[in-house]
Amino acid sequence: MGEAAPKAAQAEHARDGAAAGGRAGGASARGAGASAAIDFRTEPSRYRHWKLGVDGEIATLTMDVDEKAPLLGGYELKLNSYDLGVDIELADAIERLRFEHPQAKVVLLKSGKDRVFCAGANIRMLAGATHAHKVNFCKFTNETRNGIEDASENSGQKYVCVVNGTAAGGGYELALACDHIMLVDDGSAAVSLPELPLLAVLPGTGGLTRVTDKRKVRRDHADVFCTTEEGVKGKRAVEWRLVDEVMPRSKLDEAVEKRAKAIAAKQGGKADKGIALTPVERKRSANSNEYKFVSVAFERDNRRAMITLRGPDSAPPSSADAMVQQGAAFWPLQLARELDDAILDIRLNELEVATIVFKSDGDALRVLTYDAFLDANSDHWLAREIRLKWKRVLKRVDMTSRSLVTLIEPGSCFAGTLAELIFAADRSYMLIGTMQGDNRAPATIVLGDVNVFGTYAMSNGLSRLATRFLGEPDSLDTAKAEIGKPLDADQAEQLGLVTFALDDIDWEDEVRLFLEERASFSPDGLTGMEANLRFAGPETMETKIFARLTAWQNWIFQRPNAVGPEGALTRYGSGQKPNFDLKRV
Amino acid sequence: MGEAAPKAAQAEHARDGAAAGGRAGGASARGAGASAAIDFRTEPSRYRHWKLGVDGEIATLTMDVDEKAPLLGGYELKLNSYDLGVDIELADAIERLRFEHPQAKVVLLKSGKDRVFCAGANIRMLAGATHAHKVNFCKFTNETRNGIEDASENSGQKYVCVVNGTAAGGGYELALACDHIMLVDDGSAAVSLPELPLLAVLPGTGGLTRVTDKRKVRRDHADVFCTTEEGVKGKRAVEWRLVDEVMPRSKLDEAVEKRAKAIAAKQGGKADKGIALTPVERKRSANSNEYKFVSVAFERDNRRAMITLRGPDSAPPSSADAMVQQGAAFWPLQLARELDDAILDIRLNELEVATIVFKSDGDALRVLTYDAFLDANSDHWLAREIRLKWKRVLKRVDMTSRSLVTLIEPGSCFAGTLAELIFAADRSYMLIGTMQGDNRAPATIVLGDVNVFGTYAMSNGLSRLATRFLGEPDSLDTAKAEIGKPLDADQAEQLGLVTFALDDIDWEDEVRLFLEERASFSPDGLTGMEANLRFAGPETMETKIFARLTAWQNWIFQRPNAVGPEGALTRYGSGQKPNFDLKRV
Repeated sequence: MGEAAPKAAQAEHARDGAAAGGRAGGASARGAGASAAIDFRTEPSRYRHWKLGVDGEIATLTMDVDEKAPLLGGYELKLNSYDLGVDIELADAIERLRFEHPQAKVVLLKSGKDRVFCAGANIRMLAGATHAHKVNFCKFTNETRNGIEDASENSGQKYVCVVNGTAAGGGYELALACDHIMLVDDGSAAVSLPELPLLAVLPGTGGLTRVTDKRKVRRDHADVFCTTEEGVKGKRAVEWRLVDEVMPRSKLDEAVEKRAKAIAAKQGGKADKGIALTPVERKRSANSNEYKFVSVAFERDNRRAMITLRGPDSAPPSSADAMVQQGAAFWPLQLARELDDAILDIRLNELEVATIVFKSDGDALRVLTYDAFLDANSDHWLAREIRLKWKRVLKRVDMTSRSLVTLIEPGSCFAGTLAELIFAADRSYMLIGTMQGDNRAPATIVLGDVNVFGTYAMSNGLSRLATRFLGEPDSLDTAKAEIGKPLDADQAEQLGLVTFALDDIDWEDEVRLFLEERASFSPDGLTGMEANLRFAGPETMETKIFARLTAWQNWIFQRPNAVGPEGALTRYGSGQKPNFDLKRV
Repeated sequence: MGEAAPKAAQAEHARDGAAAGGRAGGASARGAGASAAIDFRTEPSRYRHWKLGVDGEIATLTMDVDEKAPLLGGYELKLNSYDLGVDIELADAIERLRFEHPQAKVVLLKSGKDRVFCAGANIRMLAGATHAHKVNFCKFTNETRNGIEDASENSGQKYVCVVNGTAAGGGYELALACDHIMLVDDGSAAVSLPELPLLAVLPGTGGLTRVTDKRKVRRDHADVFCTTEEGVKGKRAVEWRLVDEVMPRSKLDEAVEKRAKAIAAKQGGKADKGIALTPVERKRSANSNEYKFVSVAFERDNRRAMITLRGPDSAPPSSADAMVQQGAAFWPLQLARELDDAILDIRLNELEVATIVFKSDGDALRVLTYDAFLDANSDHWLAREIRLKWKRVLKRVDMTSRSLVTLIEPGSCFAGTLAELIFAADRSYMLIGTMQGDNRAPATIVLGDVNVFGTYAMSNGLSRLATRFLGEPDSLDTAKAEIGKPLDADQAEQLGLVTFALDDIDWEDEVRLFLEERASFSPDGLTGMEANLRFAGPETMETKIFARLTAWQNWIFQRPNAVGPEGALTRYGSGQKPNFDLKRV
């Protein structure tokens, strides 16, 4: 089993120690062996589990999981079950459909296996993974499925799920993320969420929320469905709103073709040609990750990662065509992809990093010229996709369970899109004036339209500034009036845009004390606190998934009834029944 | 320490066993000794911790906790810290203010201690309590604080919190539930949420959510506030929106009086005289709780509690005055109070009950005459308070972490207000026709206005039927057209009002199988699943508190960093620092 899995990765993701253990002598999990790190970068030629085909307006994404190629070790990916490695490819394919195949209007999500759509997350993988890996795995798969919905809503790529057999657990959750679910009616193909009866855990990838809030299944039907191991099939699946249509196996291909064409016909005209998402280049060393526009410096003894974003090194292209020409090297796109990779790397490979510190380096006004360029070309498909990519990357930052702080110093370029990192942070500190011996001009920040309107809306549907100023809407209006003006530290503090403006005498001590204190707190307490404080205001299906559902799942992932020695997840497949503590909590 | 605490209760609430343990030989915790049960019934003459005074339009609720009277054993309630016993009295006082003192327009919430407002939930109690007790304790205290906000919003009783010294953790959360927070500015009085830095847990009673969503504190300020052990005082507390005003100690009494009068002046005219909330009479035996209109039968071997609600035994009173005359004996009010007590008793004292089965017995049309009576008198303060009480009790049912099922059989009276229990249940089963030998008429249900309009809105702000039919709004309209008509099982199923209509041949097996299956599932899995499936649709501050915040807190209450042998909650006060597992999750 699992011959293809790197053994080092396996060790890294071994079961959690019994209790609070402290860190292993200053060496991080990643530091112990860079080859063990999970890499989120891939491309179709390297896919083991998916095939991506595009035929004019219709794309086909075929799941055909190689059971001998698990990401970690110790399990086989039978019956199109998946692990993080499978989902990394899916996420990549969804991104490529947007950037490389913008002409695709319909994506058919299919299985490459006979009479099996997808058995969901691999149970043996879950049973063997650490708590942290399970939680981060679920978070990433959720983000991937939200990406499907985002492509549907904002990029006119509609997803049709062709369920040719069993779609169980995460398999059905994948279907739920699609716009239209087609189910074969052959007396055996069924959709199901068997997690509760089978494993004593919840469907972890939005299943319960999408059942109640997206497909709006009646709650008693949902109750029956989620407690029925074998699921629901045929006509009842349609009546209960679980799928959109059923058809005999003999009519499936014809029905799919007809449906795809009908949906494609409803979408508007689309660009013909995409750009190539060339590989994100990254140079790893013991204590850093270097990309072209992003540097990550790890101070592991202090449990910090410093992410520096660099501004553009030249003016924006002269035209939209020139932007297309630059493709993946176009500064806003390359920066977004690099930042995304940096964040994912920290999430999965640097578990002991307590705090991510954002800095920037560059010419603020030049950053703004890129924002202006994207605004001027907002009708162009690539400009739109780049904005949407930033929106997703910034949401990924919001959802990252580390303390976030932005330091605004001379030489920085927190303007427009980059200023968003000030508002995504739990706190921001801005230096008044300069440090002794620094002859650069004092730091300023510059707001852009992107900061005050919904361009980069958080998962609650509001801009970060609107969320920040929920209690003082006047401050939002005042901020709007400052768009385009360089604001120094005192002004920024006055406007409520930064947490603290500090002079050179206080700066080092205050920032150091904050970072040290943060690293001394319980990581779990911080996770819970930040998940609550970051998302004031309205709730959406997305926030429900990440808050209500995820938090309950995390709880259950800690409960002996699931993960204890006699728990259902542990005992699954052992032939032994679980033994439950019967007290309700 | 803890001399006043019944030792049996102490044993009952001892720390959870190490892992899944199974039940103790068929005997429930409660069955082992009825005297150990927590009793939610109290009255001002028996209060140990609060004083309730009413002077015309101004009521004063003074917290003066008797440190020698903890509910459980092993701790002292120092510095106005509280446990469930203290909160049971507060909940009682809030209810009495509404029913016994409807003329009160302002409630001053004060401390009876010098320079200490309230130190929050007692830490030693939390450290020693079982997971189930901690969770249920937080749930009840949350409901109590929601009750304060409900009284303010719907009964014109505005709460002014007078913070004369330290308001820490739950102390500040109590203040947050009030409409107006006044803080002494003496260089030491402060509000704080020190849970995270001190105990590695979250403020468990809505604190984080009320900070961000009620008081709309800016998120970076909230971050600083929630990580600063000593809290925030003076002018900064006002600037950061944490309190509404500060004043020197010498001006406090004068400022409070002025503020109270100003707020009272804004409220409309009010009824002069309330009714007495006479004691809820309950007869306990080994396997039942008998009230006048409610019976609870425990089938502990099957992990079930059957709650039967009885209809009224006479016609409604002839006038509003006659209703006031009946007072607490007025059927809808007495039934609501009895049901509330029955639910709370199961929650805290019957931890192994998996499923609550609702039944009813009586004359459906007579139930409707009471609804009609309340509608006809909807301007009367007592009719309004009774509706609001039902709304709260039904929400308490929604929030109860047990599977809920309603069985609709001949002789039942699920009409109007009582029909709400069909829609509060996770599932409902209705018998078609009658069982052999039963010569009663087949069961019917009758909808009333209360079911389709917002009278008994759930915490998501929608009626249970509107929530049920989110995906099929036409069904809601169809249901409206059926108001007042007795609906038999087939009709009810057709209309989507019940989950399953079953004939006498299937009834017993199907219901039995369902109940057996439910009792076989992981209690934790069911808790998480039901918490997700019950609340489709919009989110409110209340659902945020019960979902997002509570779920995260429950998770943290399971994490070694808080409750493990080296965790912060365990080590608090021991002189030893906690030892954290530093991985972020």
